[in-house]
Amino acid sequence: MKGAFSMGDSKRFNDEGMAIMVDVSNKLNTKREAIAKGSIHMNLETINKIIDRDIKKGDVLSVSQVAGIMASKNTSLLIPMCHNVNINAADISFNIDKKNSKIDITATVSTTGKTGVGMEALTAVSVTALTIYDMCKSIDKTMKISDIRMTKKTGGKSGDYLSEE
Amino acid sequence: MKGAFSMGDSKRFNDEGMAIMVDVSNKLNTKREAIAKGSIHMNLETINKIIDRDIKKGDVLSVSQVAGIMASKNTSLLIPMCHNVNINAADISFNIDKKNSKIDITATVSTTGKTGVGMEALTAVSVTALTIYDMCKSIDKTMKISDIRMTKKTGGKSGDYLSEE
Amino acid sequence: MKGAFSMGDSKRFNDEGMAIMVDVSNKLNTKREAIAKGSIHMNLETINKIIDRDIKKGDVLSVSQVAGIMASKNTSLLIPMCHNVNINAADISFNIDKKNSKIDITATVSTTGKTGVGMEALTAVSVTALTIYDMCKSIDKTMKISDIRMTKKTGGKSGDYLSEE
Amino acid sequence: MKGAFSMGDSKRFNDEGMAIMVDVSNKLNTKREAIAKGSIHMNLETINKIIDRDIKKGDVLSVSQVAGIMASKNTSLLIPMCHNVNINAADISFNIDKKNSKIDITATVSTTGKTGVGMEALTAVSVTALTIYDMCKSIDKTMKISDIRMTKKTGGKSGDYLSEE
Amino acid sequence: MKGAFSMGDSKRFNDEGMAIMVDVSNKLNTKREAIAKGSIHMNLETINKIIDRDIKKGDVLSVSQVAGIMASKNTSLLIPMCHNVNINAADISFNIDKKNSKIDITATVSTTGKTGVGMEALTAVSVTALTIYDMCKSIDKTMKISDIRMTKKTGGKSGDYLSEE
Amino acid sequence: MKGAFSMGDSKRFNDEGMAIMVDVSNKLNTKREAIAKGSIHMNLETINKIIDRDIKKGDVLSVSQVAGIMASKNTSLLIPMCHNVNINAADISFNIDKKNSKIDITATVSTTGKTGVGMEALTAVSVTALTIYDMCKSIDKTMKISDIRMTKKTGGKSGDYLSEE
Repeated sequence: MKGAFSMGDSKRFNDEGMAIMVDVSNKLNTKREAIAKGSIHMNLETINKIIDRDIKKGDVLSVSQVAGIMASKNTSLLIPMCHNVNINAADISFNIDKKNSKIDITATVSTTGKTGVGMEALTAVSVTALTIYDMCKSIDKTMKISDIRMTKKTGGKSGDYLSEE
Repeated sequence: MKGAFSMGDSKRFNDEGMAIMVDVSNKLNTKREAIAKGSIHMNLETINKIIDRDIKKGDVLSVSQVAGIMASKNTSLLIPMCHNVNINAADISFNIDKKNSKIDITATVSTTGKTGVGMEALTAVSVTALTIYDMCKSIDKTMKISDIRMTKKTGGKSGDYLSEE
Repeated sequence: MKGAFSMGDSKRFNDEGMAIMVDVSNKLNTKREAIAKGSIHMNLETINKIIDRDIKKGDVLSVSQVAGIMASKNTSLLIPMCHNVNINAADISFNIDKKNSKIDITATVSTTGKTGVGMEALTAVSVTALTIYDMCKSIDKTMKISDIRMTKKTGGKSGDYLSEE
Repeated sequence: MKGAFSMGDSKRFNDEGMAIMVDVSNKLNTKREAIAKGSIHMNLETINKIIDRDIKKGDVLSVSQVAGIMASKNTSLLIPMCHNVNINAADISFNIDKKNSKIDITATVSTTGKTGVGMEALTAVSVTALTIYDMCKSIDKTMKISDIRMTKKTGGKSGDYLSEE
Repeated sequence: MKGAFSMGDSKRFNDEGMAIMVDVSNKLNTKREAIAKGSIHMNLETINKIIDRDIKKGDVLSVSQVAGIMASKNTSLLIPMCHNVNINAADISFNIDKKNSKIDITATVSTTGKTGVGMEALTAVSVTALTIYDMCKSIDKTMKISDIRMTKKTGGKSGDYLSEE
Repeated sequence: MKGAFSMGDSKRFNDEGMAIMVDVSNKLNTKREAIAKGSIHMNLETINKIIDRDIKKGDVLSVSQVAGIMASKNTSLLIPMCHNVNINAADISFNIDKKNSKIDITATVSTTGKTGVGMEALTAVSVTALTIYDMCKSIDKTMKISDIRMTKKTGGKSGDYLSEE
């Protein structure tokens, strides 16, 4: 039995603790894509400073875009049970939503592999948001990262997924 | 001037693009602590499976707790302008909120260094949440990570911060 | 000639120092699996505390299992001449051997690639054992990690290997 | 309470799963050193080829020495609850024991920090041994890594440790 | 549109900042090889000490060769828009050019993948040179790394490239 | 003796292969700064496209600046015998030299530690240049990275260094 703990007398004493990187041996190398989204809420003044590139640490959106793309390649080093995959493409885009005083982040990641890249897209969104936070935290202590979710996933045996939003 | 781009004729042509890891040389090595929080929303059935340790990939909270602690040590590799620091302690705790169908995550990180560990705490919360997502995604496609924010920060010259929640 | 040092006058002056990541270009992407085993010896009292989950740093087997699985993905970053591969599955299991006052660790790793994953399985066992050591070292200074070896290897041109134990 | 899981109704439901990077805030930055040892057993013919530098992948001891030193700096990325420290010095030495058909490895690591570097020394020995394994595995399938243990530890509040060997 | 920043009102306000890991989904997994070269200039006395293995930090060429090979596997973690690939082979060789008081470095890297490994070869040369610098810097402050360039690239749709040198 | 290989009969058989991370235990934590420079030569047309932000992969200087700063934090993971240090500040600036058809890169890195950050500055320049190469390589195959050298180093026992350029 996989992931199990056993005693010398062959009696398992702990199933709950088990963790396993599930087997994808029999999955096909198919083209897969995932889209994840999320938002970071902040003061309107902070948004304006980002647009005006008036943040001491640098051009917030440029830097955080680079951080998000790099994070998509680091996903399997961060998420314990996540398979390492070779990424075909990664793209981060932003929408400035002044009305709701937030910046929306969209990450699109694709691969030709045995597993999807949903976690890669979600990690890219998270690290992009964290980088925005880092670069603006000296002027805004009220920021909040929210609504990180998968909105689309295609390719793979389990069929396509599209959120209803 | 720091982080600037210049032309051969000494005229700067691009200030906006500049990015810089700000200088903390003159900051003191003081004891600093940061607390960050966040939540992951999911189906109640998923929460019950987590509590019952009935998730195929393993014990969700144990694994994600380990992932979060490890992520706090990786923060400066993920967040471009974030200083690398030696962490004194890192702790992740969970609150199961069945009423609102979510799990709340709290990360507490401390250091004795020249910079705070707010980003370390926020990154720990984010990666903990992403790991929960990864381990449950095969049974729940509606999960959403929200309300990642700093709630407390102590130590350092800029004074203590405590959110009003 | 590969990996050689040469002088300007074309005379090689140092063959011994050469190191090379051997070429696997002509190997096929086949399904390969490796099993490695090892043990960590400790006081019986320490084993009992692990079973009773009475170790200050946490649930020893859960945490070390996660560490071992993550290490299998880091193998090529640690072992200089080891190829990086995409892992299909990784699994760590334990056997508590009270009679001999040790915990046995088994790592099973598989891939569909051009090289085997023997080093990934051995690295997973090693890091799992090191993590157990780390979590118990404050109460037991006599621990010893032993008998790390490959017990099975399948797939690949060189044929299957099965140790005689 | 640290590292705990709690329910919304404030009742803890899982203490066993908790893991924590213990707090070293109140420890002093003192000079600390650790020595770890271990051995890799192999065929005498393999040992002779290592000495003669007749291994295809390169000079086995040179490469594995570099791998071990680098691993000491990676320790906190591999061992989940291990603190990251700045290393003062790292040194790997070998003893060829033809009589017992094994190579002995000694790693000495030092720091001026709040925690010891025992895990760094043990990790250095482990990765050095794994690298020797990797470089010789095509000609010897019987290798075994054994007796990885701490032999000396100095500095720190808990007093010095010296194994009785 | 890929990599773009947009405002809530759908008007793009910043195209310049966009960065993207370009899509290689439609590229074939073909055998690709790249050769890069570079040189490190130093005092003749330093070269002689390297040849005589009279440098305090160790055997300079052996260590830097290992560093270069390992760096080829780390390339996609360093170069933001570079795809991660599985490497088939990596080889670093040296030419001691006493006449011009420099050491020439050649890195050959190959893969069977969707993208070339030119960056992997260039990164390998760079890190090899930096390691030579590190090991000799206490005795020579005049070293200079130069002429890092691609000299050959084969495989892939864009056709082969061979520099005219 | 440090870093040595020895035989069971206590006769050293290989001094040349030894490598060691030299001991800095007795060095003081002082404020240290290093400045490194380097250039990347390319077609004038490529320089113009960089200035006009007309490169498909993104804003070349912004992205490479981020890569260089991040690389300074990764230095000890790349350079085997290099100590890991906590960086106080890192800054990359550019000079566009149209006359000589090259871009000059300057990296300034500082720390308060036991070792200098010369390697961190040199690594930052190298990775910045490699990133520029990566982003422009589809339109320019003649690029060459040159003149990577240390120009200034202050702090530390060995005294300040200033190149004569």
